[in-house]
Amino acid sequence: MKTLFTYNWMIREEWYKWCEDVPLEELLKNRTGGVGGILHTLFHIIDVEWSWIRVLQGKPDFQESFEGYQSLEKVKELDALFKKEVSSFVQGWDNGYENELLQETRQDGSVETLTWGEVMRHTIVHEIHHVGQLSIWSREIGKRPVSANLIGRGLTSLES
Amino acid sequence: MKTLFTYNWMIREEWYKWCEDVPLEELLKNRTGGVGGILHTLFHIIDVEWSWIRVLQGKPDFQESFEGYQSLEKVKELDALFKKEVSSFVQGWDNGYENELLQETRQDGSVETLTWGEVMRHTIVHEIHHVGQLSIWSREIGKRPVSANLIGRGLTSLES
Repeated sequence: MKTLFTYNWMIREEWYKWCEDVPLEELLKNRTGGVGGILHTLFHIIDVEWSWIRVLQGKPDFQESFEGYQSLEKVKELDALFKKEVSSFVQGWDNGYENELLQETRQDGSVETLTWGEVMRHTIVHEIHHVGQLSIWSREIGKRPVSANLIGRGLTSLES
Repeated sequence: MKTLFTYNWMIREEWYKWCEDVPLEELLKNRTGGVGGILHTLFHIIDVEWSWIRVLQGKPDFQESFEGYQSLEKVKELDALFKKEVSSFVQGWDNGYENELLQETRQDGSVETLTWGEVMRHTIVHEIHHVGQLSIWSREIGKRPVSANLIGRGLTSLES
């Protein structure tokens, strides 16, 4: 778990860096697919990551919309705020949590039972999937995307 | 490891199913970003997955190009062929393999040392990233993409 969360955080920082050279208009522009835009995608990733970690802890999740976060700085500030709690939860992850159960109410009111391991992996793949979308939009605006490679980042020995 | 490989295989099967309703011309069409097309992406995913598993075993990897696999059936046949060996390796994965070392020669001739755990996670994120790209192209042709959700697929209790 730790390796893949750490991988996602490294990649996310590189996308923030990538955004610095891109006009805000391009970052906010409506695009086809995903949640519909570059900065909105980054906002969505940190929203979803934090919300699931909150749900696992039995705490209220994030309810604000992207409307209030229309700049790179605001998104990065929100990330820094959420990262503390997310990082602390991930660092404290123990393989014994794998099969802890979470009762989750779906939007239609029905209840599903998930394991904590399932939720953590869902959160991981959620970010990687959306970053794949960013890579397409990056090429559309003629810019080289951030590399998605996991090898060569020193991501070894993080597993217990 | 087993959970995320299994997730990728489930998602991949759903993309093959998704492809069945799409004209071959659209599957082969050149697109912006990634490896440049839908079927080519699926071919690339199975090529890279198999090749890394082969490299870990010290066996020769896959050297053929997409030119010879220009139909959904051919890509699926190749997948079925490779899946046997990949699946057997993944099912036999033991946490003790995590820090086994692999000496890998880069294209420029230099050598890097990777751990097996790093290579396995690289292979996992490689597929999820490319599938994120497929989801954008799917919307571009007006079709709903395969869901990337990991929860709700019964992906529990696969870890040792």
